[in-house]
Amino acid sequence: MSNSYGTLFRISTFGESHGPAIGVIIDGCPAGLEMDEAFIQAELNRRRPGQSKITSQRKEGDVFKILSGVFENVTTGSPIALVIENEDQRSKDYSHLSETFRPSHADFTYEAKYGHRDYRGGGRSSARETAARVASGAVAKLLLKKYGIGIVGFVSQVGEIKAPPYGQLDLGKTEDNIVRCPDAATAEKMIAFIDQVRLSRDTVGGIVTCVIKNTPVGLGEPVFDKLHAELGKAMLSINAVKGFEYGSGFEGIKLRGSEHNDEFYNEGGRIRTRTNHSGGIQGGISNGEDIYFNVAFKPVATIMQDQHSVDKEGKEVTVAGKGRHDPCVVPRAVPIVEAMAALVIADFVLRARAAKL
Amino acid sequence: MSNSYGTLFRISTFGESHGPAIGVIIDGCPAGLEMDEAFIQAELNRRRPGQSKITSQRKEGDVFKILSGVFENVTTGSPIALVIENEDQRSKDYSHLSETFRPSHADFTYEAKYGHRDYRGGGRSSARETAARVASGAVAKLLLKKYGIGIVGFVSQVGEIKAPPYGQLDLGKTEDNIVRCPDAATAEKMIAFIDQVRLSRDTVGGIVTCVIKNTPVGLGEPVFDKLHAELGKAMLSINAVKGFEYGSGFEGIKLRGSEHNDEFYNEGGRIRTRTNHSGGIQGGISNGEDIYFNVAFKPVATIMQDQHSVDKEGKEVTVAGKGRHDPCVVPRAVPIVEAMAALVIADFVLRARAAKL
Amino acid sequence: MSNSYGTLFRISTFGESHGPAIGVIIDGCPAGLEMDEAFIQAELNRRRPGQSKITSQRKEGDVFKILSGVFENVTTGSPIALVIENEDQRSKDYSHLSETFRPSHADFTYEAKYGHRDYRGGGRSSARETAARVASGAVAKLLLKKYGIGIVGFVSQVGEIKAPPYGQLDLGKTEDNIVRCPDAATAEKMIAFIDQVRLSRDTVGGIVTCVIKNTPVGLGEPVFDKLHAELGKAMLSINAVKGFEYGSGFEGIKLRGSEHNDEFYNEGGRIRTRTNHSGGIQGGISNGEDIYFNVAFKPVATIMQDQHSVDKEGKEVTVAGKGRHDPCVVPRAVPIVEAMAALVIADFVLRARAAKL
Amino acid sequence: MSNSYGTLFRISTFGESHGPAIGVIIDGCPAGLEMDEAFIQAELNRRRPGQSKITSQRKEGDVFKILSGVFENVTTGSPIALVIENEDQRSKDYSHLSETFRPSHADFTYEAKYGHRDYRGGGRSSARETAARVASGAVAKLLLKKYGIGIVGFVSQVGEIKAPPYGQLDLGKTEDNIVRCPDAATAEKMIAFIDQVRLSRDTVGGIVTCVIKNTPVGLGEPVFDKLHAELGKAMLSINAVKGFEYGSGFEGIKLRGSEHNDEFYNEGGRIRTRTNHSGGIQGGISNGEDIYFNVAFKPVATIMQDQHSVDKEGKEVTVAGKGRHDPCVVPRAVPIVEAMAALVIADFVLRARAAKL
Repeated sequence: MSNSYGTLFRISTFGESHGPAIGVIIDGCPAGLEMDEAFIQAELNRRRPGQSKITSQRKEGDVFKILSGVFENVTTGSPIALVIENEDQRSKDYSHLSETFRPSHADFTYEAKYGHRDYRGGGRSSARETAARVASGAVAKLLLKKYGIGIVGFVSQVGEIKAPPYGQLDLGKTEDNIVRCPDAATAEKMIAFIDQVRLSRDTVGGIVTCVIKNTPVGLGEPVFDKLHAELGKAMLSINAVKGFEYGSGFEGIKLRGSEHNDEFYNEGGRIRTRTNHSGGIQGGISNGEDIYFNVAFKPVATIMQDQHSVDKEGKEVTVAGKGRHDPCVVPRAVPIVEAMAALVIADFVLRARAAKL
Repeated sequence: MSNSYGTLFRISTFGESHGPAIGVIIDGCPAGLEMDEAFIQAELNRRRPGQSKITSQRKEGDVFKILSGVFENVTTGSPIALVIENEDQRSKDYSHLSETFRPSHADFTYEAKYGHRDYRGGGRSSARETAARVASGAVAKLLLKKYGIGIVGFVSQVGEIKAPPYGQLDLGKTEDNIVRCPDAATAEKMIAFIDQVRLSRDTVGGIVTCVIKNTPVGLGEPVFDKLHAELGKAMLSINAVKGFEYGSGFEGIKLRGSEHNDEFYNEGGRIRTRTNHSGGIQGGISNGEDIYFNVAFKPVATIMQDQHSVDKEGKEVTVAGKGRHDPCVVPRAVPIVEAMAALVIADFVLRARAAKL
Repeated sequence: MSNSYGTLFRISTFGESHGPAIGVIIDGCPAGLEMDEAFIQAELNRRRPGQSKITSQRKEGDVFKILSGVFENVTTGSPIALVIENEDQRSKDYSHLSETFRPSHADFTYEAKYGHRDYRGGGRSSARETAARVASGAVAKLLLKKYGIGIVGFVSQVGEIKAPPYGQLDLGKTEDNIVRCPDAATAEKMIAFIDQVRLSRDTVGGIVTCVIKNTPVGLGEPVFDKLHAELGKAMLSINAVKGFEYGSGFEGIKLRGSEHNDEFYNEGGRIRTRTNHSGGIQGGISNGEDIYFNVAFKPVATIMQDQHSVDKEGKEVTVAGKGRHDPCVVPRAVPIVEAMAALVIADFVLRARAAKL
Repeated sequence: MSNSYGTLFRISTFGESHGPAIGVIIDGCPAGLEMDEAFIQAELNRRRPGQSKITSQRKEGDVFKILSGVFENVTTGSPIALVIENEDQRSKDYSHLSETFRPSHADFTYEAKYGHRDYRGGGRSSARETAARVASGAVAKLLLKKYGIGIVGFVSQVGEIKAPPYGQLDLGKTEDNIVRCPDAATAEKMIAFIDQVRLSRDTVGGIVTCVIKNTPVGLGEPVFDKLHAELGKAMLSINAVKGFEYGSGFEGIKLRGSEHNDEFYNEGGRIRTRTNHSGGIQGGISNGEDIYFNVAFKPVATIMQDQHSVDKEGKEVTVAGKGRHDPCVVPRAVPIVEAMAALVIADFVLRARAAKL
């Protein structure tokens, strides 16, 4: 159960960092959707390690294979299995960790919960698992394109360096630089900063902002499966995420109701709001305005420094920094955030079909 | 589906603000748990409107009745149905809203999604629904008491007024004042501020912080149902919530990994962390430290002022402030946040039973 | 979980035989459906005890109340809660059973599983729970009427007395007699036989056959949620059911493939089959022909005779026949079978909306 | 959703008859279980085509690979992905079927439901999908062995040839012959009969009986997820199944309650029943006696004869018998029935852990 997500458009992922392969089954993708394999691969490439000097240098082609559910390049309604073989595993990099709990990693909690743990590269808790999310999210994006729905993520903050608000940005420029911040000046600062952090053998956190455009009115289920509640869960399920806010978010609490309320008006027959503190969602249901939200990522736990810790027996040990890791996770997190958003929206698009007679 | 929450300890709620009753079925509560009806009622009283000058003046006794699942005062393993009759409905207060969409309410989105809407007091989208959460959350709390797990929420911010960090507070003092902030001095300021906002016929937002103490190591499921992902969804599903963060949260992104990482040490045989930026959760699984998180609530949308809006036909109208509402939702939100946390933890306690051979 | 059924049209039931009330929440009923309360009550009346000399003489009005989800007599998309108060509880009839396990009842297994049991009238294991199924099934029937789908059950066998095959019957005559067999001559024999069994203080089993007419092509999900697999589960979940078969069923195994296969032909543009051994389902998906199936009910376990058994301590005891019970369950089971069929089909009707782009 | 089965021990299968591979993810298998790969392979071999003269001659090694969830030969609690590549696909055997609907196959219903269909060998509706069930069922069996629970299926009927009741059989002899009937004399007749049917280019149906021994008291959930309801659904979800009955089944309806009831007695401190018409299940919950049930399989739809049918345009056509198929499915169905039973019981074993405080 814990490795599946979604109600009607539902994914189940599997695979460890250093096992033979990772993958995903998509169950519930409607029949009749044309597969655009090049697009799926392009999305995987955006997440792939080794893509720039500010990401992990692990070499993974992240080439996916479709095992089922697609015939003559069109979905059949049967489950779509996508598999990515692990190539550059170097498991011996991790043998020193078999007995040790790395600080702020999942080593200790997995060991306690399961009693038996694949310690190689974090095993199942590795962010490598997110490749399966990106692959299936790409299929969700293909579905959403049929509805004209677009999803764009970008890096809005690294450490204390912030981009201007999204309304002032040209989101089409996100992929113009390696940090994925659409504001060139901010991007430059971010890159320099991440590089400096990397050289100091340390890591730093950041924020990915995501905007969903052209959502129809009526997506989201009231009460527990509110649109933003599912978005929040989806984002918080990504490795290293510490917070989620949408619309006015944490800042909004300081406003008065009279400032915060989004007045409705009639724009040529379409009911719209003049402001959008609601972030495109009211009562858990999309109102047709832009949906936007922030996702906070902590500094990557693996640092190239010695740290104090304990081993399985509780003996104090020193954990030495090793392996190939990201000094800052947010540039590669952008396609992951988009993928999870796409999976959430695709699911709600299908669920919305049952709302009325 | 959208009105149910939980996997093994699962609730399904029903009811509208101005219908005959609201209620909840709890399915999956283990047999053998003693019902403490006085405790459940006390929890409902903490959420009840009309409890102080800074809350809505709607008069609801919120007296609950158990319809099933309890025999000789002990749970039987059968579904527990709890029902609360609506008393002070005054539906005519709302007849003027049948054709109008209140700004930043769910009127428009419900109308668009369902084509037919119970407009009386917001119908299903009313925060009245949270009484069912509190009642069932109280049962979850009774279960968690058997494990020694304690859940305490409090108001940590109203507008720009902030309480000190939770480590400096005596959480036992939360109920000493009507705003539910354990710091007396801050509480006083908050109350005065809310009162002033109320007199200006406006509303304001705030933050509820929640701490879960004495959680066993190993709760939470990796990947999609991470402990904090479920907590986040649960909180974001509460009316008026705009954000969720746990542990170091949004502030944590500014730290370096070397500052943020929580080093392990051995405290008399128990593995602990020296700091707790992780908020008691690593890799989605509890590590035995305090779990703590913040929940941001927007200013209540109903204000006692005239606002521009549109009606069903898209005609511009003025919505006049009417009814009985809270100037600030956070004091009454405390037991709701606690209830949702209890439901999440109770579910994971049961799910954890299946982790190992 | 175990008290809920359905994926999109989903019911959750609660209540014990001798508690204050039983009831059901329907979550996922589309908005815009007109409630026909008289129809729901009529369905409940068909299941109600005390309706004829061959049923239990317990007196229950089985009057239901709608607590939510319906506004101005139309569904709103919110959960519909239906509650039926228990009237004629006579709990003292059962006090003698608190320590004793009745043969072929659920007393022993509930006690073993839960350690604590509501012994009054079987508690949760009582067939009284089926009233909640009939009430919610009636709502499902109202939905199916919009699609022109009709569901008719009837008694096709009691003991060894069998009605002719359904194709030779006028199913419109089912309600013409108290045993609910549309063939008058067979009905007479069945009634006489049940009456004789009742006088001998014994019970007997039977078969309910159910026909679903006018189902659109394409209902049912391949692999695990095949249309007949869900129908089977739904039927087997009814108290006292021992078997399920559809189409050619157990008899079909004796045929050759060349006899059993249903050849397709073109009937004025509609693809049909000449025979219907498939029972209207191929590959788990409806093909537009009549869906028909048989449900086997065992003889009621409560008999008005002394029986050997053991008590909680394992001591041998004699269980005396007491209470008010049915000599044969099938006449009252007809609306229950129909209700479960309606719930299954309603769910698949909604699920089918997500099959294609 | 439709390609997943189980609540806590949950499988999701994928793959088409003539795609690159089929497979399954097992989510929720407890950590700490030793993988016995040889056992899994042996189970697959029991289902494999080409194993004897009375089965399909398609050549498939059915060699499985573990992609995840197992480390150092022990389960880790992470999802276990098992993949089997398709070897002997001969897709051109099926090109003639792209436009044609084979009688009593799923061609027509898939086409109608999805609008696009992988016609090669039945695609997703092929019984090849059951290999994924057998592989995951073998893992479930490994788990059940830890509890001492044993599951044995056998062929009890082919056409009109019946084996003696299971109590009179030595089930250990089931694998002694190619038809998997433990009674040698009956087996011989069955084999001869199937061979004769095969030579007449026809097919025939049969019954698989399955016995589950040593089940603890308390498995199964009351109301909708009764133990036999889940068993029934699981069996009815297998290709070609037309009926399910447990315990006294369809025959039991003819008995009187006084004959059918299973009296309890005390056998050295263990509460047992003298007869077992209940089939080891009372009120949907196991009572510790043998669970036994029958599964009816129709004659295989593919026959080596010409049949009338229609094509996609509704034009009348003749479907010629081609390909490699089983004259009678039951010998190969035995391990499939066992696998599904194992999956059901494994799930209930885990679910039962949450029943009591």
